[in-house]
Amino acid sequence: MTFLKQTELVNLVAQLSLEEKIGQLQQLTGNFYTEEEAEITGPMTEVGLTEKSVYEAGSVLGLSGAKATMEAQSKYLSKNRLQIPLLFMADIVHGYRTIFPIPLGLASSWNPKLVKKTAQVAAVESAVSGLHVTFSPMVDLVRDPRWGRVMESTGEDPYLNQLYAKAFVEGYQGDLANDPLTIAACVKHFAAYGAPEGGREYNTVNMSDRQLRESYLPAYQAALEAGCKLVMTAFNTVDGIPATANRYLNRDILRKEFGFKGVLISDWAATKEVVAHGVAANEKEAAALSLKAGVDIEMMAFCYQHFLKELVTEGKISTDLIDEAVLRILELKNDLGLFENPYRGANEEQEAALVFSKEHQEIALQAARESIVLLENKQNVLPLQKQEKVAFVGPFVEYHDLLGNWSWKGNPSETETIKEVASKRKESIEFVATSGIWELTDEELTAAHKAAEKTDKIILFLGETADMSGEASSRTNIQLPTAQLTLLRELKIHGKPIVVVTFNGRPLDLTEVAELSDGLVEAWFPGTKGAQAVTEILFGETAPTGRLTMSFPRNVGQIPVYYNHFNTGRPIDANDADNKYVSKYLDVSNEPLYPFGYGLSYDKVSYQDLVIQEETIGLDGKISASVTLQNNSNQPVTETVQWYVRDIVGEVVRPMKELKGFETCIVPAGESKLVTWEISVEELAYIHVNLEKKADAGEFVVMVGSNSSEVLAKTITVKN
Amino acid sequence: MTFLKQTELVNLVAQLSLEEKIGQLQQLTGNFYTEEEAEITGPMTEVGLTEKSVYEAGSVLGLSGAKATMEAQSKYLSKNRLQIPLLFMADIVHGYRTIFPIPLGLASSWNPKLVKKTAQVAAVESAVSGLHVTFSPMVDLVRDPRWGRVMESTGEDPYLNQLYAKAFVEGYQGDLANDPLTIAACVKHFAAYGAPEGGREYNTVNMSDRQLRESYLPAYQAALEAGCKLVMTAFNTVDGIPATANRYLNRDILRKEFGFKGVLISDWAATKEVVAHGVAANEKEAAALSLKAGVDIEMMAFCYQHFLKELVTEGKISTDLIDEAVLRILELKNDLGLFENPYRGANEEQEAALVFSKEHQEIALQAARESIVLLENKQNVLPLQKQEKVAFVGPFVEYHDLLGNWSWKGNPSETETIKEVASKRKESIEFVATSGIWELTDEELTAAHKAAEKTDKIILFLGETADMSGEASSRTNIQLPTAQLTLLRELKIHGKPIVVVTFNGRPLDLTEVAELSDGLVEAWFPGTKGAQAVTEILFGETAPTGRLTMSFPRNVGQIPVYYNHFNTGRPIDANDADNKYVSKYLDVSNEPLYPFGYGLSYDKVSYQDLVIQEETIGLDGKISASVTLQNNSNQPVTETVQWYVRDIVGEVVRPMKELKGFETCIVPAGESKLVTWEISVEELAYIHVNLEKKADAGEFVVMVGSNSSEVLAKTITVKN
Repeated sequence: MTFLKQTELVNLVAQLSLEEKIGQLQQLTGNFYTEEEAEITGPMTEVGLTEKSVYEAGSVLGLSGAKATMEAQSKYLSKNRLQIPLLFMADIVHGYRTIFPIPLGLASSWNPKLVKKTAQVAAVESAVSGLHVTFSPMVDLVRDPRWGRVMESTGEDPYLNQLYAKAFVEGYQGDLANDPLTIAACVKHFAAYGAPEGGREYNTVNMSDRQLRESYLPAYQAALEAGCKLVMTAFNTVDGIPATANRYLNRDILRKEFGFKGVLISDWAATKEVVAHGVAANEKEAAALSLKAGVDIEMMAFCYQHFLKELVTEGKISTDLIDEAVLRILELKNDLGLFENPYRGANEEQEAALVFSKEHQEIALQAARESIVLLENKQNVLPLQKQEKVAFVGPFVEYHDLLGNWSWKGNPSETETIKEVASKRKESIEFVATSGIWELTDEELTAAHKAAEKTDKIILFLGETADMSGEASSRTNIQLPTAQLTLLRELKIHGKPIVVVTFNGRPLDLTEVAELSDGLVEAWFPGTKGAQAVTEILFGETAPTGRLTMSFPRNVGQIPVYYNHFNTGRPIDANDADNKYVSKYLDVSNEPLYPFGYGLSYDKVSYQDLVIQEETIGLDGKISASVTLQNNSNQPVTETVQWYVRDIVGEVVRPMKELKGFETCIVPAGESKLVTWEISVEELAYIHVNLEKKADAGEFVVMVGSNSSEVLAKTITVKN
Repeated sequence: MTFLKQTELVNLVAQLSLEEKIGQLQQLTGNFYTEEEAEITGPMTEVGLTEKSVYEAGSVLGLSGAKATMEAQSKYLSKNRLQIPLLFMADIVHGYRTIFPIPLGLASSWNPKLVKKTAQVAAVESAVSGLHVTFSPMVDLVRDPRWGRVMESTGEDPYLNQLYAKAFVEGYQGDLANDPLTIAACVKHFAAYGAPEGGREYNTVNMSDRQLRESYLPAYQAALEAGCKLVMTAFNTVDGIPATANRYLNRDILRKEFGFKGVLISDWAATKEVVAHGVAANEKEAAALSLKAGVDIEMMAFCYQHFLKELVTEGKISTDLIDEAVLRILELKNDLGLFENPYRGANEEQEAALVFSKEHQEIALQAARESIVLLENKQNVLPLQKQEKVAFVGPFVEYHDLLGNWSWKGNPSETETIKEVASKRKESIEFVATSGIWELTDEELTAAHKAAEKTDKIILFLGETADMSGEASSRTNIQLPTAQLTLLRELKIHGKPIVVVTFNGRPLDLTEVAELSDGLVEAWFPGTKGAQAVTEILFGETAPTGRLTMSFPRNVGQIPVYYNHFNTGRPIDANDADNKYVSKYLDVSNEPLYPFGYGLSYDKVSYQDLVIQEETIGLDGKISASVTLQNNSNQPVTETVQWYVRDIVGEVVRPMKELKGFETCIVPAGESKLVTWEISVEELAYIHVNLEKKADAGEFVVMVGSNSSEVLAKTITVKN
């Protein structure tokens, strides 16, 4: 592609009228460009726009398809004075039409390369459909499963979140300058959107600056370091200032400290919402605050459009601020090659050939396989054996929507159900599809009982609907719906092994389910090829390898529960178990039901001989460690070896464990394997009281294991 | 009393050896001075103390009784080289032996004068028993009812917490210099102990500095402004630094900003616990950190005792820091007149006459009456009518421990039960005392059913045991125990009116109880005269007047829920109820079951005509408002009129409502009453981004009502 030079872009800005500049900062929805009557009775009138301003707007969201975007672009260019192309953006979160598991499921693969591949596929499908930018990745760290949008996150760990942030960005953007089958990424939501009080969507976020920098900011920063072109603001406040109007966050940290030079876009109407937050008296003040805070594009609110000119006239806003924002937007358009080819990537033939292609579906299948987490497998109830009679029961047996939230172009009707996949098999399976997530009819229960009587094992397919998680889907009850628990309790009376497969978008309270079932499979929303992946795992063609990236609580009253917590001054002491005066609850353990990093497979390796090469090293040194994995089974085992570190003494309190590395390897049947790991002391740096990031001398515990709870540990000393 | 001059105290410090100085910083438990064999097999050996160091220790906790303290003091002085008297401290939280309602109950009186009176009584009983200092008041703001120690707090409101902090301190300390029947107060726990993550005792506290100053610090500061002599550190971290080792908190804020010159004491072993927290490698480092942070007295840990001398020798600690701490302790002893009379107050005759006196019990009865909150009264099921047959059923019918946690010298056996009080009455009452909090036998259930069949109304006495709240009693389930819910559900089948009285130390999830009952009375742990007060209220001799100072959640998944929250950018809009994309849960309302300030009486006033004198005022002006209370009933009504303010636009987000004043008044039957209120704009100041506290010009909503949910409102303008 050929690009405009920077001076040409600056000149272009200079040629724009103030109205045209303000137009570039405006993002509208697709219907402004597709509805014939947009201007008369439609959206334009609603928001007080003129046709002129619609054709000066710089970007559009939620319009896709090669034909539709090309038509819209063509019409737009015919009406735009300087033919500055329109930028097409959308929420492509876990696939375009080929839908991958939800991000929380993808994360469970502990496979950033795979995640990168899914982002590449999403980019290709989006690009040929005329899109330029996706509002992804969401890298918000989450510790509260009540928050519905947890499904869009990669979990509770800053280190993993960083790796995934990088993987998504690299996958989407690829060789953005040269490859039209890529799209720009927009990391979100800056900042700390994943920490709303009470897990209630859009609620207040409050934490210290140090905590923000220690746990929440690193993933955004990792995305930027991977070249992420855009950043989206968060809906929430951060220390009392809405993120969208937060100069400290967006100017001081994002632009100055992190050196971000790309486009900062508000979340949907978030500029306007600073009025509701109560830091602006009206939309005019909101416009001034947002622009001063560094927000370039206003998504579907009109504070800039309606008030920036007036603010400039009154001398309350400098045109320099507007020019700076416009330049960043033109730079993005230029980086995408739109000045050369405003139809970049969009191609009806390629769209027909590539979108939802066999190859893409194959990647979706692989992603689904790796996302599924085996939580329980008592007496090796799984995998199912060919000769066994099994009954497949429950609301997800004939359920098409295994895609989960944020799968806009995903089509449940082209997603196979469990029954569709499993009925092709030779095993003896009886299907009892119950109809409701929330209800269980007497007839259904009777049918389930009848099937259970005749079968060897009962497989229950339970879960939440897609709209029970995702944006604005916070819940105070995170158990499965009562009707489904009733089904499980009822079928328990047959005394036969029960396997539960759950489809859901958040860590659920599965305490009772785990007690009543023999096998428990967390399938998340596994996407386009989910039914196939689940079935393969149940029957053992694929061994489960997924590992949780978020702790599963024992109950909702235990929230937040996460592995990288602090010790407190009065930790539980196993040698003094009767001591009441320790940090605990009277009625439930401090430990989650399933910890971070947890996941079973059908066979198991043991960890032996943690060896640290030098147990005393300098601040500029490296820790070199090894561990031996022993596979005594007669199957190869795929194991994700997890390395954790604890800094025993810090200037501020340090987590009990921090994931600092991992490796997935295959240990052949009956063999052992030496796994080595190395980390520089520098990578153990943390944020001190003065906000400086550095490592300290002192003692550290190096831990390795199969999950964050079961580890081998050795203490080492770092000397000044 | 006569006192040493400051120069004499300074001289006294100079006369002390380093060991004697370090001794002053040590606090031991009473058994060091009462157990004959303390030195051989007892506590001394355990902690590595010598007899010499025990008789150099500056203070003791948990030893009381005129005889015992006088003996201990006498023995101590005979062995202490310079006859510096020992200081006696203890946890006198809601009464000494005359037990008042738990602080959360006392707070429900909305009567700081009454609270002051209870503190005076506690001081008299403590002083004649030989105590000099109480570890009270606890003024920690709490928003999480899972935290067991919520019972010791006054609730979720900074303004009320300040008033109560002042009331407690003034009550305890009175004319401390001249009146020996007073004790010094120790405000705790500095800082933010009431905000542990997950409501789990001793857990991490994290919030921004601004939030800390806005909501949490004001109550401590109010105690200091009332002259509080001591401050206790908190167990938790604040932004990553344990409070006890936190120089910023204790030196910069407490001493420099707040000008506190009194004694800072660690909570129990909190100095040592900074090792577990992970900011000190060992107790020696813990000693250095704690002293540098400004902790004068180390309670039942021995970091100072064992390591300060070595730290001084090594030049790591300046003796100036030690001298400064010793001087503060000697100043406190001098302020209490102990150098004149080391037996200050202790008096066996007065002890016999005053402790648990009739007069004191009368005040306990009044406090209990005012603490009880009527939550439901459907179809005026209460008060009970003389001619009705009623059945008193449940585990609290014959239960003596109505005292609650932190009632050390309170004696349940001298606390009357509900049955003991009620059976003296003339009404027809059948009693079915069930025996267990956690169990319900078939026989008990049968007896309850039998009684229910014969009665007009069923009164259930339910609740939590005292040790289900208080320190180290966090719970994830805050419903009543299942056995008690079962009893309620079972008795519901009779179709007769049910009144539930609950005894508990935290806001419970009463959603189901409220649905199944007609009347619901929150009795807290009402103390020594609790049964009398409850019975009076049930039968209408006393009308309930208590109001909640903490929101009652609808379920545990809704926590935290508190009235003075922020609006968010997407608040629920009643005119757009179908909008999913607002800050809410899918499965439960945002509103608590019972809001802050809520409480019914047997009759009701209506609020009419909110009038604001001048609707536009200056920044140096005052808001003057009035409202008319109309009592259309044929009984006088005692009403607590609550004034709230909302600052519509701030530099940072402002709460939806902030209590800024209240007044309890009696409106005669059939009459109306004009209530006026005045507040200076200055009192609407809040903490800005630069931590400056000031008020802004702009619009404010002035609200008045019977609780934080039901208010009349008017908007006013403050001009620059």
